[in-house]
Amino acid sequence: MSDHIVTSFDQELRELRNMIAEMGGYAEKSVADSVEALLKRDTQRAKAVIELDAAIDKLQRQVEDRAILVIAKRQPLALDLREIVSALRVANDLERIGDLGKNVAKRVVAIHGHIQPTQLFGGFDHMADLVLEQLKQVLDAFAQRNVDEALSVWRSDGEIDAMYTSLFRELLTYMMEDPRNIGFCTHLLFCAKNIERIGDHATNIAETVHYLVTGESPAGERPKADNSTDLVDLPVPAK
Amino acid sequence: MSDHIVTSFDQELRELRNMIAEMGGYAEKSVADSVEALLKRDTQRAKAVIELDAAIDKLQRQVEDRAILVIAKRQPLALDLREIVSALRVANDLERIGDLGKNVAKRVVAIHGHIQPTQLFGGFDHMADLVLEQLKQVLDAFAQRNVDEALSVWRSDGEIDAMYTSLFRELLTYMMEDPRNIGFCTHLLFCAKNIERIGDHATNIAETVHYLVTGESPAGERPKADNSTDLVDLPVPAK
Repeated sequence: MSDHIVTSFDQELRELRNMIAEMGGYAEKSVADSVEALLKRDTQRAKAVIELDAAIDKLQRQVEDRAILVIAKRQPLALDLREIVSALRVANDLERIGDLGKNVAKRVVAIHGHIQPTQLFGGFDHMADLVLEQLKQVLDAFAQRNVDEALSVWRSDGEIDAMYTSLFRELLTYMMEDPRNIGFCTHLLFCAKNIERIGDHATNIAETVHYLVTGESPAGERPKADNSTDLVDLPVPAK
Repeated sequence: MSDHIVTSFDQELRELRNMIAEMGGYAEKSVADSVEALLKRDTQRAKAVIELDAAIDKLQRQVEDRAILVIAKRQPLALDLREIVSALRVANDLERIGDLGKNVAKRVVAIHGHIQPTQLFGGFDHMADLVLEQLKQVLDAFAQRNVDEALSVWRSDGEIDAMYTSLFRELLTYMMEDPRNIGFCTHLLFCAKNIERIGDHATNIAETVHYLVTGESPAGERPKADNSTDLVDLPVPAK
């Protein structure tokens, strides 16, 4: 447990929020740099992303320790308790986002030196931009307790899933056209899936913001089309 | 929060353990049935696995609510606190195992009706058996606070990663041999990755058992060869 001495409950909550903000900054960097490394085949940057993950994991454990210390010491109720539970949940999603960024970075290292048809990367650019935008927006929404902002992120996850689905189909088509693309495209398929899942975690954070402010999860079916991404139709094989 | 009335701290801890045991049973069922559904192309069973996931998610939130309630009420220290933190961590891993089982099940539905060369499934059988065995063993280790059992699971994750790597290469080879296998094999690649990641979560649980009993994480480098699975060499394309 942290042995940091705190002077007031408000300050303890503020410190939790600051730790989440720091984690959020690292998570954004992990996503941005891993995609940048992918698009520019920059293995040095990829290796830096892989190293960054340890810092994110460490922060998550610190948030967990601190949050539990505060719960035990203050026995908070209602909104105060939701503040702390939300910090735990967001830290968990950010830790997983860091893992996903790291996985993309590992694949950048893995495909280094293989044939890399540039046209394959176009779809990544768009999807990654949207995912990063969602992540920034939902972290702002969390910092500002802004449910409307959070809900707009929550509603847009379907767009990311649609981009993933078309990228998935595009990659399969390249594999069918030329078997030399298969190994390389397979790594790209996993990269695409990792980026799509980062969007899912942004959606989780949006739900946490809603819970934090209202005490409840967003009403209605979660718009994320996770089925569609897993159940994407297979293109007809090329002759 | 749960409004369940508890009579003693020991009983509260017992109830947390029971909830974890129930979650563990569901998680094992999710993994076993999703692989069974994959091997037998049983879409009915796959759909049952998809439905089962909601129950696992619900239990995870209940464990979270209960654990936080207990921390706030009892302000436990040392081992008692580790008991509760461990329950939170294990519940988190079991929830993710449920998601991974669900993802395999979704792909069973997705590939229904496509050409499914039976020989492709051999590797799954072995890997899934080992993963299930690891999961059962680590859940027993958690229930019995058995660090040695937990460490033996922790050390064996490398075997699962090695099986995944050879399965990965085998699937790529099938894709290169016949483009008609590509779409189908791609779904199998994701299934294989999901099963390999279930092994990673069993390893996480093993680390939690070690933390619960000793107060520290296992010493030394985690043996899981996650790099090797991500950085698997690409086979040379077939002529």
